[in-house]
Amino acid sequence: MKSEERLVERLARLGLEMPEAAEPKGLYRPVLIVDDLAYTSGHLPVTADGQLITGRVGDDLDVDGAQQAALLAGLGILATLKAELGSLDRVRRVVKLLGMVNCTAGFTQQPAVINGASQLLADVFGEEKGIGARSAFGVGSLPLGVPVEIEAIFEIEH
Amino acid sequence: MKSEERLVERLARLGLEMPEAAEPKGLYRPVLIVDDLAYTSGHLPVTADGQLITGRVGDDLDVDGAQQAALLAGLGILATLKAELGSLDRVRRVVKLLGMVNCTAGFTQQPAVINGASQLLADVFGEEKGIGARSAFGVGSLPLGVPVEIEAIFEIEH
Amino acid sequence: MKSEERLVERLARLGLEMPEAAEPKGLYRPVLIVDDLAYTSGHLPVTADGQLITGRVGDDLDVDGAQQAALLAGLGILATLKAELGSLDRVRRVVKLLGMVNCTAGFTQQPAVINGASQLLADVFGEEKGIGARSAFGVGSLPLGVPVEIEAIFEIEH
Repeated sequence: MKSEERLVERLARLGLEMPEAAEPKGLYRPVLIVDDLAYTSGHLPVTADGQLITGRVGDDLDVDGAQQAALLAGLGILATLKAELGSLDRVRRVVKLLGMVNCTAGFTQQPAVINGASQLLADVFGEEKGIGARSAFGVGSLPLGVPVEIEAIFEIEH
Repeated sequence: MKSEERLVERLARLGLEMPEAAEPKGLYRPVLIVDDLAYTSGHLPVTADGQLITGRVGDDLDVDGAQQAALLAGLGILATLKAELGSLDRVRRVVKLLGMVNCTAGFTQQPAVINGASQLLADVFGEEKGIGARSAFGVGSLPLGVPVEIEAIFEIEH
Repeated sequence: MKSEERLVERLARLGLEMPEAAEPKGLYRPVLIVDDLAYTSGHLPVTADGQLITGRVGDDLDVDGAQQAALLAGLGILATLKAELGSLDRVRRVVKLLGMVNCTAGFTQQPAVINGASQLLADVFGEEKGIGARSAFGVGSLPLGVPVEIEAIFEIEH
């Protein structure tokens, strides 16, 4: 099965819709391709109807809520990639994620939070191609007050 | 017009001078080139006469002051690149910025802050080549107490 | 002298043993290779007998203790690379480090902390190949409460 089909199936199972590719919040492009690598900008969690998820993890959101936010940020990355590439089937593999979690000083489960996005990518691209390198860490604040921001590098086919 | 000429023009308009390429603050190189990519280290905001800008955004600095600091960090990146490449005309394009803002927990305008550097790069390299992917986020503290640190990846010509 | 020999010598001088390559703490691979670049995930400081170093720099740990933690994170990166590549002699050079320091808001010596890892890499690969670009910054919290997390990019030989 192709990545595009797996995405449709996965979204149906989650009861989610694909969001629109997000507009930049500043002077940057959502994704930039050099050679066979696609570098995405940091993506924020937005629902399919355009609502931004906000709040601090460990305070306003628990791990489950934060994982859901990470999943939405991951969906936003897929929406950006699809808009740029035409089809997610052109993605050869996930290279790397950088996951920032807006959380309290005592919160230490950043990896569990970012798993929300990593599981989505594993479901869509398969475990072999969908799981890459990753760093997750806690930050003091994020743009527009979101709980999670994620950037990614993908290897693609031309 | 070439990037070098646009930089001179832009600096004149801003009433700024090009800073010296900064010395490393630790065991690293200011920039490292692999294949056709130049990876710069995190750059701090330093004025042309060598003064470091310090302070926390949302507390000691407002958005305008922080944007100015981001512009200086961007100038430092250009100084480093020029010292390494000989000429900025060898820059093919901006690939990606990572912008860290030392700010209060309630501050959420990190993208506006990092625009200070992105606008400079857009002015110098033009919008097509000067705007790439980007992530901006808020951190609890930065080296030497600066408000902004920025690292970048550029595609270059050999 | 080869990198592998220098590592053995350096470990002996430090009275340290090579740790096991760490198991992922989430849905990611410890290292992923694309073309001639090896992207490592964020590594945490773990001793050779598997004990995780925890605490906040500027509070529970001083600069010396944090440098030691950074050294351990760097050793973990080498263990991961060795497990993936078979031999560290296949490393052509360090491209870039991203060093996150879990510290108090007033702590500003992140570069000195990350030097703990950079010095190890310079010792093992030599200064020319072992020192690359780098960013260091302070964060509010890290996975499992560690004081330092480091990710790296290496250029390798196939």
